Formats: sequence, C-alpha cells, structure tokens
Amino acid sequence: MEFKVKEIAEILHGTVQGDPEAVITTFARIENGKPGAISFFANPKYEQYVYESKSTAIIVNNTFEPSQEVAATMIRVENAYEAVAALLDYVTAQKRSYKRHRGLHCHIRCSAKLGKRVYVGDFAYIGKKAKVGDCTKIYEQVYIGDNVQIGHHCIIYPGVKIYPGMVIGNNVILHANTVIGADGFGFAPTADGSYKKIEHTGNVIIEDNVEIGACSCVDKSQMGPTIIHQGVKIDNLCQIAHNVEIGENTVMCGQAGIAGSAKIGKQCVIAGQAGVVGHLTLADRTTIAAKSGVISTVKQEGMTFGGFPGIPYNEFMRAYALFRRSGRTDKK
Amino acid sequence: MEFKVKEIAEILHGTVQGDPEAVITTFARIENGKPGAISFFANPKYEQYVYESKSTAIIVNNTFEPSQEVAATMIRVENAYEAVAALLDYVTAQKRSYKRHRGLHCHIRCSAKLGKRVYVGDFAYIGKKAKVGDCTKIYEQVYIGDNVQIGHHCIIYPGVKIYPGMVIGNNVILHANTVIGADGFGFAPTADGSYKKIEHTGNVIIEDNVEIGACSCVDKSQMGPTIIHQGVKIDNLCQIAHNVEIGENTVMCGQAGIAGSAKIGKQCVIAGQAGVVGHLTLADRTTIAAKSGVISTVKQEGMTFGGFPGIPYNEFMRAYALFRRSGRTDKK
Amino acid sequence: MEFKVKEIAEILHGTVQGDPEAVITTFARIENGKPGAISFFANPKYEQYVYESKSTAIIVNNTFEPSQEVAATMIRVENAYEAVAALLDYVTAQKRSYKRHRGLHCHIRCSAKLGKRVYVGDFAYIGKKAKVGDCTKIYEQVYIGDNVQIGHHCIIYPGVKIYPGMVIGNNVILHANTVIGADGFGFAPTADGSYKKIEHTGNVIIEDNVEIGACSCVDKSQMGPTIIHQGVKIDNLCQIAHNVEIGENTVMCGQAGIAGSAKIGKQCVIAGQAGVVGHLTLADRTTIAAKSGVISTVKQEGMTFGGFPGIPYNEFMRAYALFRRSGRTDKK
Repeated sequence: MEFKVKEIAEILHGTVQGDPEAVITTFARIENGKPGAISFFANPKYEQYVYESKSTAIIVNNTFEPSQEVAATMIRVENAYEAVAALLDYVTAQKRSYKRHRGLHCHIRCSAKLGKRVYVGDFAYIGKKAKVGDCTKIYEQVYIGDNVQIGHHCIIYPGVKIYPGMVIGNNVILHANTVIGADGFGFAPTADGSYKKIEHTGNVIIEDNVEIGACSCVDKSQMGPTIIHQGVKIDNLCQIAHNVEIGENTVMCGQAGIAGSAKIGKQCVIAGQAGVVGHLTLADRTTIAAKSGVISTVKQEGMTFGGFPGIPYNEFMRAYALFRRSGRTDKK
Repeated sequence: MEFKVKEIAEILHGTVQGDPEAVITTFARIENGKPGAISFFANPKYEQYVYESKSTAIIVNNTFEPSQEVAATMIRVENAYEAVAALLDYVTAQKRSYKRHRGLHCHIRCSAKLGKRVYVGDFAYIGKKAKVGDCTKIYEQVYIGDNVQIGHHCIIYPGVKIYPGMVIGNNVILHANTVIGADGFGFAPTADGSYKKIEHTGNVIIEDNVEIGACSCVDKSQMGPTIIHQGVKIDNLCQIAHNVEIGENTVMCGQAGIAGSAKIGKQCVIAGQAGVVGHLTLADRTTIAAKSGVISTVKQEGMTFGGFPGIPYNEFMRAYALFRRSGRTDKK
Repeated sequence: MEFKVKEIAEILHGTVQGDPEAVITTFARIENGKPGAISFFANPKYEQYVYESKSTAIIVNNTFEPSQEVAATMIRVENAYEAVAALLDYVTAQKRSYKRHRGLHCHIRCSAKLGKRVYVGDFAYIGKKAKVGDCTKIYEQVYIGDNVQIGHHCIIYPGVKIYPGMVIGNNVILHANTVIGADGFGFAPTADGSYKKIEHTGNVIIEDNVEIGACSCVDKSQMGPTIIHQGVKIDNLCQIAHNVEIGENTVMCGQAGIAGSAKIGKQCVIAGQAGVVGHLTLADRTTIAAKSGVISTVKQEGMTFGGFPGIPYNEFMRAYALFRRSGRTDKK
C-alpha cells in the first residue's frame, strides 16, 4: 500500500491536522508506531502513546483534545475505531481481485456449474452437480461434495471440507480446515450395550454473510436442516451439532459449542469455551459468559448467564464472591 | 428415494393404517411435515403435530391411541424411534455402492496393498506398505502414512490424516479432518527452563465399529499403543491424548478431552466439553456430566460425576443449588 | 531398530548389569515387557514390574537397589527418565533423513525459494515468494501461502494450512491440520444489529523450537503480529487468538484457549481446557489449572490459579472442599 495522508483523509471523510503530503506505507499499533505507518487512537488508556508514537499519522476522534504536543500528523474523524476498520477494508478490497483461476491440479467434475470469475485452487475437488456462484474463491485443497450449492462472493479457505448436499449462501467466509456437514452424533443403544449408527440424511444451510473460523464443525441432521442464519459470526474450533438453528447476527467465540437440536435466538453472544445443552431454546440477545453453559430454555430476552449450570450473571458473581471468600484464610 | 407406504411397512415389520399405496419420496420432522414425506412420532410432547402434520405417512408406536383424527397414513411399529433409524439405515445402504474407484490425481505407493472395491479419491495419498481392506472408502485429500493398516468397510472422510504405523479395524468411520497418530504432548524440562521433546515411537489402535467425528485428535504414545476399543463413538473436536485406553462402547461427546495415560472403562459417557485428567482409571459405566471433569481414579462402576473437580452428581447438584441460592438477593 | 545392550549403554553413558550382548529390537512399557524389548523404571509405583517384566533389558537409576532378583539385564544410568528420552531421540534421529524430495503432484510456485534437502510431499502447495529453509519437511497436502517464511529443520505435517505472509522460525514442528494465520475474530457492531468484518492485515510470528499439536489455530491480528516466542509447546485443538503474545517456554495443554490481545509470560503452564480472557497480562511462571480460567492481569510471578473466574489455587481448593461438603447429606 502507498497513500498520501490527504488521500486517506478523503477516504475517511476526515480532516488533516499536520502534513497532508506525508506518505503512508503500512499500519502499526500506536504503541509500536514507526515512520511511514498510520496508527489510530480510540481507547483513552493509550493517550500517552499519541505523544510518543513514531507513526507518521494517527487517526483520532474529532473530540480528542491533546494535552501535549503531537508530533504525528492527525486525521480527525467522527469515530476513529470505525475509521480504521473502514481503512483496512478499503486497503484489503484494493488488493482483492476477482479473476477466473483454475489450479493446475484441481478436479472439477463435468456436471458442476461454476459462475463467473471463480477461483479454484490446486488440489481442490468440486463434486458432481455442485454449483458455485460468481466471484467465489475455492482455495487449495478444498473439498466440495456432490450437489453442494455455494453462493457468490464467498471465500472458502484451504482445506475446508463440505459434505455432499450442503447449502451455502452469499458472502460467506469459511476459514481453513473447517468441516461442514459431517454426520450428527446420533446412535441408538442396543440390548448388548453397543450403539447402532443412526444415518443422517439432512443437510446444513448457511445463510448470507456468515463467517466461520478455522477448524470448526457444523454437523448435518438426521432429517431436515441445521440452519445458521444470516450474519452469524463463529470463531475457531466451535462445535455446532445436528439440527441446531442459530438466529441472525449471533456471535459465537472460540471453542464454544452447541449441542443437538438447540435453537439459539438472534443477536446472542456465546463467549469463549461456553456451551449450550441440546433440545432447548434461547431467546434473542441472550449472552452466555465465557466457560459457562446454559442447560434449559431461556424465554426472557436479553439476559446474561454465568456458571454451569448457567444462572443469571449477577447472581453468579455474587455467589462466586462468597464462594471465593469461603476459601480465604485471612477473611474477616 | 421412492417407496410406497406398504413397502416401508414391510421393511419395518409394521402395519398400515390408511393408504398403503401412498408414495413417499423424502423424510421430514413431524413439525415440518409436507406431502410426500414420512415422519415419525415417538416423543409424547409432539403429539399435537400428529394431528396437524402434512406428511403423507407417520411412523407411530403400536401403543399409540390417537385422541383426534389423524389425516396421515400411520405405520404402526413396536418402537417408532428404532424403526425410523432402521429406515434411514435402509435408505442410506441402498445409496451406498462399493465400486472400485481411483481418483485421477491420487498417489498410491507401489508397495501399498489395497483390497477389493476400494474407493480412493482425488489428492489422496497412501504410503508405502500401507494396507487397506475390501470395500473401504478413502475419500479425497486423505493422508495415509507408511505402514498404516486399515480394515474393511471403513469410511475415511476427506482430509483425514493418519500418521505412519497406525492400525484401524473394520467398519470404522473417521470424519473429515480428523488426525490419528500425532505425537503425544511429552517434553522433558531442562535446567535452562526450556523443554526437550520426547520422541514418540508408539502407535494408535482403533478397533472395529468405532466412529470418530470431524476435527478430532488421537495421539500416539511414547511407546506402546493408544487404544480405542470396539464400538466406541467419539464426536467432533475431541482430544484423546497419548497412551489413553478407551473401553468398549464408551461414548464421548463434542469437545471432550482425555489426558495422557488415562484408562476409561466400558460403556462410559463423557458428555460435551467434559474432561478426564491423565494417569487415572475410570470404572465401567462411569458418566461425566457436560463441562465437568474427573481428576482421580473411580473404582465403583456406574457412578455419575458433575463439577470440576468432579464429585458425585447428586452432591454436586445439591451444593450448586445452595451456591446459587447464596447469590440471590431475594432469597428467603 | 536393532542394538546390543552394550551399545545402548554406551549411548546413555550407563553401566550394564547382566548380558551386554543381548539384542534389543523394540521399546515396551515395563508392564507390557516382552523378549527383545527394552523398558525403563523410574516411578517407584512400578517397582514390582521390574521383577516380573519379560523385557530383555531395563533402564534403571544408579540409585535403584532391587529387593528381589531381576531377570532382565539392567542398564544403570544417572536418570532413567531422561535416559529413555535420549534413547528414543537417538533412535528417531537415526531413522530421520534429510533428502531432497518433490512429490509427483505438488505445486511449488516459480518465485518460491527452497533451501537444500527440502522434502515437499504430494498435493502440497507452496505460494509465490515463499521461503523454506534447509532440511525442512513440507508433508503431503500442506498449504503454504504467498510470502510465507519458514526456517530450517522444520516439520510441517500433512494438511497444515499457513496463510500468506506468516513467519515460522527454525526447528518448528506443526502437527497435522493445524491452521496458522486465519483472520482474528474481530467485527464492528452496526446500527442494525449486524456485524461488519474488520479486515486483518497483521501476521503470525512463530519463533524457533516451537511445537504445535494437531488441529490447533493461531490467528493473525488486525495489525501487527501475533507472537509465539521460542520454545513454546502447544498441544492439540488449542486456540490462540489475534494479537496474543506467548512468552518463551510456556506450555499449553489440549483444548486450552487464549483470547485476543492477551500477553502470556515465560514458562507459564496453561493446563487442559483452561482459558485466558483477552486484553490482560500474565506474569512469568503463572500456572492455570485444568478447566480453569484467568480473567484479569496477574502481576506476581509463579502463582497458580483454579476455578473460573480463576482465584489462587489453594483458596480455590479450600472453597471447593466446603462447596462439596455442602452438598453431602451425610456430613457431620
């Protein structure tokens, strides 16, 4: 990248305070600033770095009033945090190209239908009657089973495996080695103590604008779909079991898991290493704290839970404070 | 699929109440029934759907006595839940074929020995002196190291990696991107605070009828085998460390983990996100509740544990009720 | 392998008590000893096996004084545990070769630069301007993005995916299906409840002598690097989020996770299924017990934490003992 400060200010609808001709070639955190870099300042904790930073330019809020001299050129914007995201976005979009590409060693079955400007990397496999929309990237070593449908402008990173018959919307991002559509974990106990596999004939539907991190798993159902509604964001190493439904714009952090047939509402937050037991319903905007888990249906919207089994967060923290106090030898 | 109701009844040893000539083309959950579909009714909670369902046919228990009129044709069987599993099984088996296949771009080393009707997908690698039994499917992008042995009728889904020397029985299913035989996590501390790797020369033995989900890991041992006995069922994202032994027909749910050298009995249940500490023994039929963990040997069979460190489940739930109560401001 | 006892004694600087000409062909745990095998005895719990073992030779500490007759030949060394590690090491090193190899079906872009005696397996992809040091092994189905740098003597096991621009040091081991450099989990909430992706332009730096297990994830940052310092050992299925820094020789066990921007000190131990919340700092030699988690900065070195939220381990165990007692019906 190479931009003049005034060009960046124009992109961000900001105003320049300093040298508009200064050249920016990279990003840097404000605490690791260096000449040629642009940084941003949004969190008041970091104010001292504004005065010390070696970055050429710093994006700051319009409301920021320096208490010392600032050596760097400042670009003042309405919201510095959003501005830097927009700038990263702009730079990334500039680098992104939508060119038709076929790896030397990929295998696309004859009956598969690919849209325009689709990228297919080496060692990727695209099965029979699979459909891939325009401008989607199928990276190296991806497996797309028979009859899979993938929308337009998706990014399927290396090593992703999508079982036959799964349905992926538009603008979906799946990070490396994630698996979509493995059999749900369903077995029928038999008289001799062994388990008999229940075959899974359902599928997984992932709607538009969903992003799933690396090494995560979304299982298919015995019958009917597992559904991830639009805008859902799922981090790395997450488990979504068969027949789960996740509502729009819900967020699921690293190593969290949802057991079979649970229905999660919209705009929920399931924090890191948290879990949801199967066959229950969570109301919209439910939050589950890190390492906590919910084991029964939540009907009231907007609640936060902690502990396992999960209880209302304030109650959990008060109970935990007493628990903690009980273990101290110096308590009064 | 396309079956008449009377054909399905015959497969399931059931009796038809309604139209034996009606045509079934798909499965549907009873709450999402549609014409042409077959559903099943086993859980009394869903009884209302029996009367409302648009499915063409519904599998019900012989004992079911409708309290209202049922529009759908009913197939009465001894156990509706088992019957639907049997039907899914039958339909899946019909679709399954055992044909010899070699991907255009796979690499099978000359000294590898493959049985009859083995499927080897594109970009799969089968190492030197590896052995693969009859009717086994090695899907696309699988890696089979040197000297690996795999039995007959196994399904190795795309992206599975099996390190050299591992041993897999018959009828084993390994889901996508699972890893068998990575080095156990063993290091010797040195005087300068760094760790020296301990080489692992052991292997992993997976016996017959084991199924392991996607993105799970079974490590090999320093010496001797890590053993997963027959009939064990392991879900996605599970960790089985070096030198572990898991007894017959034990079940391990999503994101659960077992630390090094633990010996797990037969028919145990390790629920989601639960854990077992290393170097201990669990008696047969031990159950560990979700998110709980056991840290010492359990000699008595059939116990259930909750919490971490795990304690008998009833004690845990009573203690947790008091804990919870202590945090409530409205408690009496 | 095939060694005489006297050869092994020489390698280990030990002394032979018994038959120096006996031939050793394999390793076995002392409890599973068999003729031709060498075992070791370090843990006093296993002393009875020294007298019963069928192994041809047993490595013991110089200080060991048998209370019964020992049939096997003993090799006496300063530290039996370290000696067996050294022997495994020696045997493994003998088997290891550093030969130039190119898989029949790999794809190395023209502008990539590979050192001497590099192994590149089938279906591996090495991107533009990537650099790979001498004697490094890139196994089958690995993906190395553009501009990635990898040092010498690394082992990159099958299915590992390394995003463009990542930097890997020397003597690094990455086990199968691990993912380095997926986008960090960063999204900006918007007014309509949806989330806007924040682009990640940073990278991951993995220093020398790091080992990472199978199916683990290290994310790249929005800007600046995620850093794993030298000698760090990470087990399977671990999550290291964007902008994390892990100090030298820290150990992280299976299924543990570190949230975004956390700074972990040197020689810490993060046990299995444990977690660290984002944006905090852990002092050197901090230990987090299994399934526990730390949610705020720890300034004092060498502390151990249990529970979630994590509290000093002794306090946790005392509090937990009282908690447990509260649930017992037979308590006095």
